[in-house]
Amino acid sequence: MFVSLEGPEGAGKSTVAQTLVAGLRSKGHEVVLTREPGEGDVGSRIRQILLEGEGITSRCELFLFLADRAQHVETVIKPALAEGKVVVCDRYADSTVVYQGYGRGIQVEALRKWNDFATSGLSPDVTLLLDLSPAIGLERLRTKDRLDREPLDFHERVRNGFLQEAARDAKRWVVINADQNPADVAAQCLQTILNRF
Amino acid sequence: MFVSLEGPEGAGKSTVAQTLVAGLRSKGHEVVLTREPGEGDVGSRIRQILLEGEGITSRCELFLFLADRAQHVETVIKPALAEGKVVVCDRYADSTVVYQGYGRGIQVEALRKWNDFATSGLSPDVTLLLDLSPAIGLERLRTKDRLDREPLDFHERVRNGFLQEAARDAKRWVVINADQNPADVAAQCLQTILNRF
Repeated sequence: MFVSLEGPEGAGKSTVAQTLVAGLRSKGHEVVLTREPGEGDVGSRIRQILLEGEGITSRCELFLFLADRAQHVETVIKPALAEGKVVVCDRYADSTVVYQGYGRGIQVEALRKWNDFATSGLSPDVTLLLDLSPAIGLERLRTKDRLDREPLDFHERVRNGFLQEAARDAKRWVVINADQNPADVAAQCLQTILNRF
Repeated sequence: MFVSLEGPEGAGKSTVAQTLVAGLRSKGHEVVLTREPGEGDVGSRIRQILLEGEGITSRCELFLFLADRAQHVETVIKPALAEGKVVVCDRYADSTVVYQGYGRGIQVEALRKWNDFATSGLSPDVTLLLDLSPAIGLERLRTKDRLDREPLDFHERVRNGFLQEAARDAKRWVVINADQNPADVAAQCLQTILNRF
């Protein structure tokens, strides 16, 4: 089973990820916890450019995310799924559609096609959307990276984009209200995944 | 005027580039010499991944070249052209069509579309193809990077790809026989460009 976590920074994705891993392992599943961007040698170099690159353009940024994803799917996610493991991925293709499409204005249909190419069509079985108003999410962050420092209306478009994407495929997406105690959010997420088995 | 140089490693692109720059400057042109991949902070970081990245997949490689190109066009090539300068670029979009398409088997029509997006449709006015048999080109190289170490039939497909691309648009492409004295090759290239003004 392939689970992706989506939502803004500050929504509690890391806490959820840890809870999912512990909970699934306690039920006897082998679990791989991974993230985009930034896995492996190539991924971590790409992540560094995305976080620190000087004057990076929207199109360059998009292709860097796709480069990271292509490498990640081929070298980490597919091999783990082939071995019967559960893969929990912190951000995946939907983040590109939402941040680069709804956020930056790149055509959403084109982004879907490029994601399809980058992932060879690999889609998550379940996507948990940790939904939170941007004002609350940004307030929770201690340090802000290049994307977090975008103006509030960018983050509003992103939130709206995630909700629209979730509405397109209610079978894959589960929307979780992340404006609750983090432990409660995580417990709800774990229950959702366990129910899918 | 935007001039791109294409052809295999070992064909003498650097000598040609230097000769073009000196020759055009002596005629009073302002010239910017640049290359792909690798200009600027973001470009040089991407170049490093392309040259050193461990176990990099074809799709990741493709998106890294496109990321570099998008950044390069927006921050280097377009500003220089807007100021009336001549831009001489060592490798450009055709290299992606040829190496990733003809060489690695990614669909050529898709690559053209992605190049169009990465460059916002910016095409060279003249492309000089330094044509050389791969056996000779590879023999001339003192050090070989990741791409140069591909098997000979990869390089044969690349040569064939360049010639096919050149045949598609004889107005833009000029094929130069690079199996000659480097100074003669460079002089021929300079004359070709001067004739275009």
